[in-house]
Amino acid sequence: MTDRKLNADAIRVLAMDAVQQANSGHPGAPMGMADIAEVLFNDFLSHNPNNPQWINRDRFVMSNGHGSMLPYAALHLSGYDLSIDDLKNFRQLHAKTPGHPEYGYTPGIETTTGPLGQGIANAVGMALSEKLLATQFNEQDLSVIDHHTYVFLGDGCLMEGISHEACSLAGTLKLGKLIAVYDDNNISIDGEVDGWFTDDTPGRFTAYGWHVVADVDGHDPEAIQAALNEARSVTDRPSIICAKTVIGSGAPNKAGSHDCHGAPLGVEEIQATREALDWQWDAFDIPQSVYDAWDAKDSGQQKEASWQSLFDRYQQQYPDKAAELLRRMNGELPANWSEKVSAYVKQVAEDAPQMATRKASKLALEGLGPMLPEFFGGSADLTPSNNTFWSGSKSINDGDFSGNYMSYGVREFAMCAIMNGMTLHGGLLPYGATFLMFSDYARNALRMAALMKIRSIFVFTHDSIGVGEDGPTHQPVEQTPTLRMIPNMSVWRPCDAVESVVAWQHAIENANGPTSLLFTRQNVQHQERSDQQIDNIHRGGYVLIDSAKTPELILIGTGSEVGIAAEATRRLQSAGHQVRLVSMPCAELFDAQDEEYRHQVLPPSCVKRIAIEAAQGDYWYKYVGLQGRVIGQNTFGESAPGNQLFAHFGFTTDAIVNQAEELLG
Amino acid sequence: MTDRKLNADAIRVLAMDAVQQANSGHPGAPMGMADIAEVLFNDFLSHNPNNPQWINRDRFVMSNGHGSMLPYAALHLSGYDLSIDDLKNFRQLHAKTPGHPEYGYTPGIETTTGPLGQGIANAVGMALSEKLLATQFNEQDLSVIDHHTYVFLGDGCLMEGISHEACSLAGTLKLGKLIAVYDDNNISIDGEVDGWFTDDTPGRFTAYGWHVVADVDGHDPEAIQAALNEARSVTDRPSIICAKTVIGSGAPNKAGSHDCHGAPLGVEEIQATREALDWQWDAFDIPQSVYDAWDAKDSGQQKEASWQSLFDRYQQQYPDKAAELLRRMNGELPANWSEKVSAYVKQVAEDAPQMATRKASKLALEGLGPMLPEFFGGSADLTPSNNTFWSGSKSINDGDFSGNYMSYGVREFAMCAIMNGMTLHGGLLPYGATFLMFSDYARNALRMAALMKIRSIFVFTHDSIGVGEDGPTHQPVEQTPTLRMIPNMSVWRPCDAVESVVAWQHAIENANGPTSLLFTRQNVQHQERSDQQIDNIHRGGYVLIDSAKTPELILIGTGSEVGIAAEATRRLQSAGHQVRLVSMPCAELFDAQDEEYRHQVLPPSCVKRIAIEAAQGDYWYKYVGLQGRVIGQNTFGESAPGNQLFAHFGFTTDAIVNQAEELLG
Repeated sequence: MTDRKLNADAIRVLAMDAVQQANSGHPGAPMGMADIAEVLFNDFLSHNPNNPQWINRDRFVMSNGHGSMLPYAALHLSGYDLSIDDLKNFRQLHAKTPGHPEYGYTPGIETTTGPLGQGIANAVGMALSEKLLATQFNEQDLSVIDHHTYVFLGDGCLMEGISHEACSLAGTLKLGKLIAVYDDNNISIDGEVDGWFTDDTPGRFTAYGWHVVADVDGHDPEAIQAALNEARSVTDRPSIICAKTVIGSGAPNKAGSHDCHGAPLGVEEIQATREALDWQWDAFDIPQSVYDAWDAKDSGQQKEASWQSLFDRYQQQYPDKAAELLRRMNGELPANWSEKVSAYVKQVAEDAPQMATRKASKLALEGLGPMLPEFFGGSADLTPSNNTFWSGSKSINDGDFSGNYMSYGVREFAMCAIMNGMTLHGGLLPYGATFLMFSDYARNALRMAALMKIRSIFVFTHDSIGVGEDGPTHQPVEQTPTLRMIPNMSVWRPCDAVESVVAWQHAIENANGPTSLLFTRQNVQHQERSDQQIDNIHRGGYVLIDSAKTPELILIGTGSEVGIAAEATRRLQSAGHQVRLVSMPCAELFDAQDEEYRHQVLPPSCVKRIAIEAAQGDYWYKYVGLQGRVIGQNTFGESAPGNQLFAHFGFTTDAIVNQAEELLG
Repeated sequence: MTDRKLNADAIRVLAMDAVQQANSGHPGAPMGMADIAEVLFNDFLSHNPNNPQWINRDRFVMSNGHGSMLPYAALHLSGYDLSIDDLKNFRQLHAKTPGHPEYGYTPGIETTTGPLGQGIANAVGMALSEKLLATQFNEQDLSVIDHHTYVFLGDGCLMEGISHEACSLAGTLKLGKLIAVYDDNNISIDGEVDGWFTDDTPGRFTAYGWHVVADVDGHDPEAIQAALNEARSVTDRPSIICAKTVIGSGAPNKAGSHDCHGAPLGVEEIQATREALDWQWDAFDIPQSVYDAWDAKDSGQQKEASWQSLFDRYQQQYPDKAAELLRRMNGELPANWSEKVSAYVKQVAEDAPQMATRKASKLALEGLGPMLPEFFGGSADLTPSNNTFWSGSKSINDGDFSGNYMSYGVREFAMCAIMNGMTLHGGLLPYGATFLMFSDYARNALRMAALMKIRSIFVFTHDSIGVGEDGPTHQPVEQTPTLRMIPNMSVWRPCDAVESVVAWQHAIENANGPTSLLFTRQNVQHQERSDQQIDNIHRGGYVLIDSAKTPELILIGTGSEVGIAAEATRRLQSAGHQVRLVSMPCAELFDAQDEEYRHQVLPPSCVKRIAIEAAQGDYWYKYVGLQGRVIGQNTFGESAPGNQLFAHFGFTTDAIVNQAEELLG
C-alpha cells in the first residue's frame, strides 16, 4: 500500500463511517473521488487552514454537494477548525457538518452546494472574479490576486441545464485558471446512466472551447497529478479533467452500484470495506501518519506568509490600491457613502423625474455607480431593455477584463449562480438583470443567495402586465409575491424614481442577503414627499398621502399602482372620505419595523383596507385581512398594449374608488 | 426573381407590416427564416389546414417564439382559419395573433412559446410521443402514427440550459423523426453574439449523438431542401440543420443588426425593404399567385384522406386498438373510470394504511394505473425516492418504446417541458416527478402548462423539513404556497393515503390544467372519515373533525400537519373547547366551491382560526385573516433528522394547543 492510497482511504473511511453514524448521507461520491481529492489537496491546493479567509487562496467547490463528506474529511485532515467530533456530528442539528456543504457553517466551505449544477456556475463566478480583480489590481511583478478555482462535479451536474449555460460562457470567457474534475462514474440515482446520459462529454466541452483532459484514471494518483499539471499548464482556456472512477470505490460489494450513492453502506459492508482496504483503525480513528501527510497548516501558513510579503511590497508601492482591494474584499462600502447617497436621493426628489422605474434604476446607477468600483453589472441578453448599462459601464465581452459589465447571453440561471460565485469570492458587487418573468428560470439561484445570506443584487424589469403586447408568456403575475416568500430575500417594487434610488441603496447596503429589484417597463408618476416621508421609505412602507382625520380606509399599493391609488385617494378625499395611502415598496422591511411604527402606518383599528398590486393578490391578505380587499391579478395576462391591459384587468382609479366606496358602505 | 423567393417574401412583408401596424414585435426572425419556412411548409410539412387536429399531422414548433409572425404568416398563407384581418390585429386584445404563439388561440399553433428553450423541449416530447404511440399502435403496413416533428430555434434557445437537457436526452432516445433548424444569425438582443456565445454548435450536437447538417445557406431554397431531405433520410438519430441566415433579411439597412430584432422597422425602412425585394403590393395585400403557391388546403385534405383510408383499414382489422387510439387522442378517460376510482378510494379508506404519502402515491398508481394505458411516468433521476415506478411500469430507457416509463436523468426543467409536449401531442398522459425543492428548476415549465391549460401531472415528493438530514438545500419552504399562486395550477397536499388517491384522481380528471401533487417523505397518520367526508375531499377543503357545538376556533391544516392538528383538536376538545379541524388538501378547489359550502366549512362568524402548514405561512392569512394565526415556517430549514426538525420549528401538538389556548383567551 502506498502512502497516497492510505491518505485517500482516510477520506473513504471517514465518509462511510460518518454516513453510517448519521444513518443518512452519500458515501459513494467521496469514496469514488477520494484519490482525486487527496492529490488535489496535497499536491496542488494553495490554501491555509489557519486562515480560511486568506484572500488569495485557491477556491475549491464541490458541485456534487451530496458528497459533502469529501470536503469535510479533506478539510479536517488538512487542519481546518473542523474536529473529529464535528465529523461524528455529521447531519445533526446545528453541526458544522450539515447534510450538504453550507457556506457559513464550515471553515473552508466556499459555497453551499447540493442543488446540482450550481456549484460549477459558482466556480465560474469565482474564476471570473479572480480574472477581473487580477486585471484591476495586479501590477508588474506584484500579482496580489493570482489563484486557481477547482471544482468537482458529477454526472448530475453535467445533465443539469445550468452546466451548459455556465460552461459555455466560461469557454467564451477563456477562464484559464478554472479547473473542473468530472467524476465519471456512470451511476446516478436511477442506476447506470447509459439509458439517460450518453453525451460525449469531452466532445461537448471541446465544443465550448475548453481544454479537455480525457480518460484519466481517477484512482491512479500519478495520472491525476499529470492531469492536474496539464490542466494548469493550459492557461488560455478552462480545463476539464474527465476522470473515470468507481462510485463507492473500496466497498467490495457495493462499489460501482447505485446502492452506495445515497444510503449508508451498512455495518457488514463497512467491515468488509475496512478489510478490503486493509484499514486497521476504528471508526473516526485516523493514524497520526495520515494526519501528518495531510497537514497543511504549516505549508499553508508559509504560502500565505509568502503572499503577505508580496502584498506588503504592493502596499508600499500602491497604498491606495492596496487599501481599496482590502476594502472591497471586506465588503465595506466606500467612505462618505451614506452622506453622498442621501444627497443623491434628495436631488432626485427635487428633480422629480417622471419616468419608468427601469429608467429610474439607470438614474440610480448613474448616481451611485461612480462611488462603487466594485460594481459588476450585467444582463441575460436584455441590456437595452433592462437599462443596466450606465455611462460608467464597460463591457468585458471583448476580452478586456478591466471592464465592469458582462452580457451573460440568454442564461438567466447561470447568470444568477455566477453572480453568487462572484459575491462569495469577494471584491466585487454583482448586479444582473433579466425580465421579472424569467426570474422563474433562475429561481433556485435566487434562493441559494438567500440561503447563503449574500449580497447579490437581482434586477428584474418589466414587472407586470405593463409589459403589454409581448403577452402572458412575458407578463409576471405570481412572480412578485412568490419572490417575497423566499426567506431572507428583500424584494423592492418602487413606485417612482425616488423610491427606486432608495431601493438600490438598500440593495447595496444589505450585507446579509440578496435583493430583488422590480422595475416597470412603462412610465409612472412622480410622488411628492416631505423629508420625513423620504426617510420613511427606508422603513419599507409608509404613509404617502394621509387623511385629515383618523383614516376610515387605507389603500396600500406598490410600484406602478401607487400612482393610480394616489389619484383614487385624492378623489375619495375630495368626496369627504378619510382615506390614507400607504406605499409599501419593501414589505419584508416594513415587517421588520417595530410594532409601534407598523401600527402607526396601519392602525389595527382601521380594518377597511384595500391592497392594490398588478400581481397575484393572495399575499396581501396578510395586511388587509378578511375584512379588507385585494385588487390583484389572479389570472394570466393578455397580449395587448399595456395601458389597455391595466383597464382590462381593473387597475384603474375608477375601480379602486368603486371598491373603496363599497367598503365604506 | 424566382417564385420561391416571392413566396418567402410574403412572410417577410407580412411580418414587417404586422409588426409596424402593432408598433410592437419582432420582425427580424421571421424575415431571416422566411426562406426556410417556405421550403418546409411547401415541400415537406404534412398537415391539413382544414383540420388542425388531424392526429397524424406533422408537428411544427417555433421555439424562438418571438418570431411569431413567421408561423402566423405561414398558417395564413397555407389556408388555416387565420384571416388577413387576424394578421392586421397582431398583438391586440383577444386577437387570434397574440404577441407570442399561444396554444388555443390560433389554429395550427401546437404549443405556446416565447420563454426560450422550452419549445425545443416541447418538440422532444412530441417526437417521443410519436415514437411511443407508433410502437404501441402501428401494425404491419398500417402505420397510423407516422409523422415528423419540426422545430425552429435560435441562438437564445441554444444558450438556455433547457436546450442542453432536452437535446442531450433526445440524442440518447435516438428520436429520428425530430428535425430542428437552427437560425444561426449571430445576433441576440445585446448585439453580435461573439462576445457571449461561441459554442461550436455542430460539435455540441454531435456530442449529443445527433445527426448534424452544418453550414447550410438559410436563404438558398435548394440548399434548405437538400438539408431537410438529408435530415429526413437519417432515421436513427435526431437531426439539426445549422442554417446561416441574416436576421431581418430583406431590409436593406437593418438586416444583420439587432436593430431589427425586437422593434418595428419603421416606415422608411419598410418602404426601402419593399423596393429592395421588388415587392409591389401594399401592406397586407398578397397576390393570388402567392396564395395559390402556398395553399395547402387541397393537398392537406388529400393527405388526411389518404391517412384516413389507412386508418379505416386499421379500424376494420384492429377495432379495439383503433377505438383506444381515438379515445386517447381525444383525452377521454376509459369507461367505468369514475365507478372504479370511487371503489378504490373506498377500499383504501377501509384498509386505512399508515404510510408516507409518497408511498400512498404509489398505492394510487397501483390502483389507478391499470386503467390507464395512456399513463407515461417518469422521474428526474429520483425514481426510487419518488415512488413513481409501480408494478405496471416498464422503462423505455433500454430502447424498447413499448414501455410507459422514463428516467429523464437529472433534468427537471426539460422533464416538465417534455411532458408538456407529450400532453400537447395527445395520446399520452404524462406524470413526472422530482423533489418538491427542485420544482424551482422547472418552474417556468409548470407555468407554461398552466398557461396552456393542459393536463400535465407533476409529482413532487419530500415536501417539507420532513426531508430531514439533507438539509435546507433540499427542504422546501416557499415552494408549496408559491406553486398555489400560479394561475390555473391545482396543488394538492394530501394528509394521508385516502386524500392521496383522491388527489391523483383529480389530477387525472383535470382536463383543463396541470396539477402539482405534493407528498411527504415521512410517515403520516391515517384519518378516519365518514362517506360524506370522503365525498367532501373532492371539494378541496372539508371538516375533518367537528366540534360538538358551534366552533369557537378552527384549525386548518394540510398534508403532514393534519395529523398533528388532529391530535391538538382532540386535546382541545377534551379540555372543553369547541374546536373544528378543517383539512384543506387543495385550496384552489376549495376556493372554487360555492359560498354556501365555503361558509359552512369556515363560518365567517368564527374568526379565531389557526392555519398549520410546514411551509412559508403568508398564504394562509387569506383564510385566517388579521385575527387569526399561522403556524408556518418563514425561515429556511436545517440539517437534522426530520422529527427533530418538526419539534425545532414548532410543528407539534403542544405548540398548536398553546397557540389555540392563547387565542381562545
